[in-house]
Amino acid sequence: MAGPSAEDVKVLGLSLSPFVIRVRIALRLKRVEYELVEVRITEPKSEILVKSNPVYKKIPVLLHRGKPICESAVIVQYIDEEWTDGGGSSSILPADPFDRAIARFWAAYIDIKLPAPVRALRFETEAAKEVELAEQIRQALGLLEEAFVECGKGKGFFGGDAVGYVDIALGSYLGWMMALEKAKSVKLLDAEKLPRLAGWAERFLAEESVKGLVPDADEYQKFYAAAAARTSATPA
Amino acid sequence: MAGPSAEDVKVLGLSLSPFVIRVRIALRLKRVEYELVEVRITEPKSEILVKSNPVYKKIPVLLHRGKPICESAVIVQYIDEEWTDGGGSSSILPADPFDRAIARFWAAYIDIKLPAPVRALRFETEAAKEVELAEQIRQALGLLEEAFVECGKGKGFFGGDAVGYVDIALGSYLGWMMALEKAKSVKLLDAEKLPRLAGWAERFLAEESVKGLVPDADEYQKFYAAAAARTSATPA
Repeated sequence: MAGPSAEDVKVLGLSLSPFVIRVRIALRLKRVEYELVEVRITEPKSEILVKSNPVYKKIPVLLHRGKPICESAVIVQYIDEEWTDGGGSSSILPADPFDRAIARFWAAYIDIKLPAPVRALRFETEAAKEVELAEQIRQALGLLEEAFVECGKGKGFFGGDAVGYVDIALGSYLGWMMALEKAKSVKLLDAEKLPRLAGWAERFLAEESVKGLVPDADEYQKFYAAAAARTSATPA
Repeated sequence: MAGPSAEDVKVLGLSLSPFVIRVRIALRLKRVEYELVEVRITEPKSEILVKSNPVYKKIPVLLHRGKPICESAVIVQYIDEEWTDGGGSSSILPADPFDRAIARFWAAYIDIKLPAPVRALRFETEAAKEVELAEQIRQALGLLEEAFVECGKGKGFFGGDAVGYVDIALGSYLGWMMALEKAKSVKLLDAEKLPRLAGWAERFLAEESVKGLVPDADEYQKFYAAAAARTSATPA
């Protein structure tokens, strides 16, 4: 069988999307070469996006030898199961079935609890409500502060010694959260209230598999400013 | 290693819950003996439920040798990975990584698209809106009519020759949908518009792994009537 580099792997997406970031980290962990194909996600959406993900028309889509796979959690598990270093075992998810279940539970928790208040905070303009939303986000993160011990068994990552499934799920939001901390003068990953997560975030962003893939606060702020300018310039 | 029957397996749940039905079908497919422990899901919730699923306090919970696993999709995958008939391979999800991804995609689709309109239809009282909601449900099912071919490759189930991950995800709602068809005089699994799904539903309910686990329309109606009576008798 040809090595991953010889395979035809494309990611439809944009580099700022947390869900695209997940796929890129997973591919780098597996040393799979790929092409990032930037697509238009506002109307009219790119034809290749609509054709590859007709159900949701959303990024990311992984195209492997032309076959599309959609939804970031599905894609990351596909990457884990498709590229197994010959041994047939995955490495993004833990090997033990119970540990895998715990990782899937917390990764799903992250997507149930975080995006709504994070998105609301981005568009909130009233200071008192910003403080409320920040508290709501910190509370959601508070359970992950506990889960960190359960998943990672006291080591440096949710995945133990290495970046794993839950690290990818949560870490993909880090740039977005750091941008909001800067723009809104709120604390989300508060080192006093969430010491384990604050330490984890530093380690995560310094990992070889992650470096350069999570955009920093400034990149998000530039994007938000441009998006706001476009919106206000749109004729009614 | 002792056989499954010697293991300590409990399911916290109620037999009418679609999410509990999933877990019971998966366990029967794997021939795992278990005890169904009925718990109180309204306040005050059963202590064992709150203790076993402190994050959501919802059913089902699988207790395996005392260790809790929550969320039906997580539990079904755990069952698939934990009890592997010695060969180390799962059987509820397909073996091929791409087929597994497709199955996970459609199982997630079912939970994204079906529960909200099905629940809304249950509580709707206006005939015109009932017709609208039924159409919305049929449209969501329409994509599954296509997915049935992609997943099942022209065989009898989404899982091919046997009940698999998507069959369990969708089949768990069948009793609920049949009850609504009866109560509301609407067609959901319409044999004319959705011939593949209508045929699949008959085969699914006749399977050994499913028989007796999906309550029929009358059981749901009795439960709904009792719930409605309780609610109207509750002091304000």
